[in-house]
Amino acid sequence: MERLYLYDTTLRDGQQTQGVQFSAAEKVEIAQMLDLLGVDHIEGGWPGANPTDSDFFDAAPKTRATMTAFGMTKRAGRSAENDDVLAAVLNAGTASVCLVGKTHPFHVREALGIGLDENLENIRASVAHLVAQGREALFDAEHFFDGYADDPDYALECLHVAIDAGARWVVLCDTNGGTLPGRVGEITRAVIAGGIPGDRLGIHCHDDTGNAVACTLAAVDAGARQIQGTLNGLGERCGNASLTTLIPTLLLKEPYRSTLQTGVSPEGLAGLTRISRRLDEILNRVPLRAAPYVGASAFAHKAGLHASAILKNPATYEHVEPAIIGNERIIPMSNQAGQSNLRARLAGAGIEVGRDDPALARILDLVKVREDQGYAYDGAQASFELLARAELGTLEPYFSVERYRTTVERRKNALGQRISVSEAVVVVRIGDQRMLSVSESMDEEGQDRGPVNALWRALGKDLGPYQTHIEDMHLVDFRVRITGGGTDAVTRVIIDSADGQGHRWSTVGVSHNIVDASFEALVDAIRWKLIRDRVAPA
Amino acid sequence: MERLYLYDTTLRDGQQTQGVQFSAAEKVEIAQMLDLLGVDHIEGGWPGANPTDSDFFDAAPKTRATMTAFGMTKRAGRSAENDDVLAAVLNAGTASVCLVGKTHPFHVREALGIGLDENLENIRASVAHLVAQGREALFDAEHFFDGYADDPDYALECLHVAIDAGARWVVLCDTNGGTLPGRVGEITRAVIAGGIPGDRLGIHCHDDTGNAVACTLAAVDAGARQIQGTLNGLGERCGNASLTTLIPTLLLKEPYRSTLQTGVSPEGLAGLTRISRRLDEILNRVPLRAAPYVGASAFAHKAGLHASAILKNPATYEHVEPAIIGNERIIPMSNQAGQSNLRARLAGAGIEVGRDDPALARILDLVKVREDQGYAYDGAQASFELLARAELGTLEPYFSVERYRTTVERRKNALGQRISVSEAVVVVRIGDQRMLSVSESMDEEGQDRGPVNALWRALGKDLGPYQTHIEDMHLVDFRVRITGGGTDAVTRVIIDSADGQGHRWSTVGVSHNIVDASFEALVDAIRWKLIRDRVAPA
Repeated sequence: MERLYLYDTTLRDGQQTQGVQFSAAEKVEIAQMLDLLGVDHIEGGWPGANPTDSDFFDAAPKTRATMTAFGMTKRAGRSAENDDVLAAVLNAGTASVCLVGKTHPFHVREALGIGLDENLENIRASVAHLVAQGREALFDAEHFFDGYADDPDYALECLHVAIDAGARWVVLCDTNGGTLPGRVGEITRAVIAGGIPGDRLGIHCHDDTGNAVACTLAAVDAGARQIQGTLNGLGERCGNASLTTLIPTLLLKEPYRSTLQTGVSPEGLAGLTRISRRLDEILNRVPLRAAPYVGASAFAHKAGLHASAILKNPATYEHVEPAIIGNERIIPMSNQAGQSNLRARLAGAGIEVGRDDPALARILDLVKVREDQGYAYDGAQASFELLARAELGTLEPYFSVERYRTTVERRKNALGQRISVSEAVVVVRIGDQRMLSVSESMDEEGQDRGPVNALWRALGKDLGPYQTHIEDMHLVDFRVRITGGGTDAVTRVIIDSADGQGHRWSTVGVSHNIVDASFEALVDAIRWKLIRDRVAPA
Repeated sequence: MERLYLYDTTLRDGQQTQGVQFSAAEKVEIAQMLDLLGVDHIEGGWPGANPTDSDFFDAAPKTRATMTAFGMTKRAGRSAENDDVLAAVLNAGTASVCLVGKTHPFHVREALGIGLDENLENIRASVAHLVAQGREALFDAEHFFDGYADDPDYALECLHVAIDAGARWVVLCDTNGGTLPGRVGEITRAVIAGGIPGDRLGIHCHDDTGNAVACTLAAVDAGARQIQGTLNGLGERCGNASLTTLIPTLLLKEPYRSTLQTGVSPEGLAGLTRISRRLDEILNRVPLRAAPYVGASAFAHKAGLHASAILKNPATYEHVEPAIIGNERIIPMSNQAGQSNLRARLAGAGIEVGRDDPALARILDLVKVREDQGYAYDGAQASFELLARAELGTLEPYFSVERYRTTVERRKNALGQRISVSEAVVVVRIGDQRMLSVSESMDEEGQDRGPVNALWRALGKDLGPYQTHIEDMHLVDFRVRITGGGTDAVTRVIIDSADGQGHRWSTVGVSHNIVDASFEALVDAIRWKLIRDRVAPA
């Protein structure tokens, strides 16, 4: 088995993603996740280029993976020792340093405005300087594939200069992302034939043609033994090659599985889905449902034919077992779904229904009607269960809400400061009891948290006999979409709730009024919790 | 030049995407977009399998592309003529019919429970029946690559049986999406060597390893001349091969550009970004920013080094020209961006700032501070412009809001129906004038549209001298995210507005209170509109 090395650049190239801005603390958490996963290098950022990256290297966690600082080869007209940009990179004190440099004559002339020989000398002197300082040196050959197409001898010479100066790795970068897999394979083979050993050769691809993963595999097929990529394929423009996708392919699929080994253990692989979703949480991004291996839809079998075959034998429509990467199989509910899907999903929720129960057809119809109104049950399992129970006649409503009112006011206070105050009144009925609760939504720091929070507090203030059961419950996330489009637009609110027992559940509400949609989802969330805890109705 | 045929299955396999449910009217609109784009076949659905698909074929638009119905080969134990499922497919009356059938012995035995010869006869009889009815016949060879690995002779025989029975195309389907590009190329070459002509051979791939596009290209490289895919890569699990990605690659990149031709014209290609985004609008999905070619980030240059080179010569960091696919270059604002990015972005908004203006550094700092608070200016250009103008001292505030109050009440009305009523009071100051406005948010149909709508109406009711300028303005979309996470979570609201002149702009508000965040974005939206229209301050 040959060793294949994984070089992660989530914290550097991944930070180039539009809309992504890590804090130093978030970088620390991500570095720890990468280390747990088992990558070989963690490229932490460009020290000196922005304050966050410098802060991160000051506080970088101890990792088994080699922490790496990124920078660029020294500028023309000064020595490597006197280049302050390069000095800032070295000052981060990492064991490994990766410097990007030019290999494409067009860029040497156009972007740097220097001669081709001067560029070679910049590469040589920079790498030699790293090595003299006792660092592992990597050279990122920017625009390598375009450069090779233009002038193969010069592009190759840049690599040889770096290797001869002591670089441990030279990395072929398809910086603009325009090279297709066949060409990446061909040029990588030519580079190895030109004297660069495969076990000192890396590959760095972007997804501008949707081929970043395939280009990376093509370079590995050709003999490159380091792959650079990011978690979830973050990165400049369309992103980098996704390690989240590449790692399972390399570990689970032939020919890689039986010819290459990496530092990722089966346990690391089983944590991949969790790591992928945690990263999205840090970024406040909605996880991509269709992401290979780790997406919520990656093992979702919606077609009726597929779903029924899967129930007999998962191998019929799954290329790998979802549990291996910590993911799970789901049979989504929707108005395409047949009764066998529905029964399987209800059974998963502990609701057993006979094969010929006429309620199955009624539930399917109801789901269809409600989805037409804007509800979405794919992502709100708890509300779906309540709907099914209501139709099956096994839903205990526990309580009803007679009316509510919520007010938001923004004005100046006595000190002349602008403040906002939210207040809610809720009238709840439980059997013969009628309970009137009022709440503001001020938190411990005096911050007004808004009308939905005020409603939640008023509801949670006095639910009579159920009160003890909802006290460990809290709201985790709140997502709003305008749906239906055009004149018939409605607001869909999905609320994620959690409790002290580690459960997490999602409910949905739909209305033209965002407060009303939120309130519906809140009431569903409480009802589901009471059912989950098997609370006896008062 | 050889002809390559594009077969779109957005309306069938694309509908298998989790969370996607087209109406018949939406299918009609999508079919018209596909026709404009220039695909050869439009697979409209499975007539008889669900009411929407049957409705669509009843109302299918006239297209230049060949409308195709999807179904499966006849079941065992009955003749093709007497199979009611097949009859429903034929009854749709399309010129072309595509039937899926088994080619993998494991599936023949496991899923169908019949003998291998009986399966061959099902394929033969079904295709022959289509041809006898005067239809163009396609045979989708399900699980072909897994089947070929298991029993190459049988898999190939299935194809020959279909061709001999008169199928125009046989299509190699990687149904579970687990086959890698190298293997797809190898098996496609073997199939052609085994007697199936490339110009009667199609390819249908899924993205379960992130290689759907590369696998499709590998099959084309091997000689297959029909590609199946979907717009935006919709489809079961991780999706199908994305035609949105494949089409520009095939038209713009070598070796395809100079050896193959398709039915897509330069005008069709220039409409690709619009089609991709319109589809997401229909689906109420947020367009994937990182999508190759058409994503909002596909030509976004965030790295400072890239951005400054792009300003000199776009070819330095772009593999194709964005305008060719109807997309555009952007230099996003963020705290990574340097002053040259900032000046370029301000110039794009008509705000000229000198290279050495100290306000540039102040604006960058302010953006950083506000993004730390939860603002996001990448997607809210109008709010960014207001922030920059304020810092440059060129922002005319036009009006100020002294206070507001909004109330939502849900209760029973006199008829005992549950209704909700939202009301807002706003006090605005313009110069010496003080204006008090109140509004409910009931629309023409008596629907309560919620507190944000009530605030918008109250604001828009009396803006004194500015009133005429905001009357053609309306709210298009409203997106809410909880951001910051954990204890410091805040609500970010982004509002898209539009006016009668066809402008569309986005503003952002952040607060712990969703109503307050929305109000901030509303006020920004109005201010931007007044600036845009060069309204003189009162």
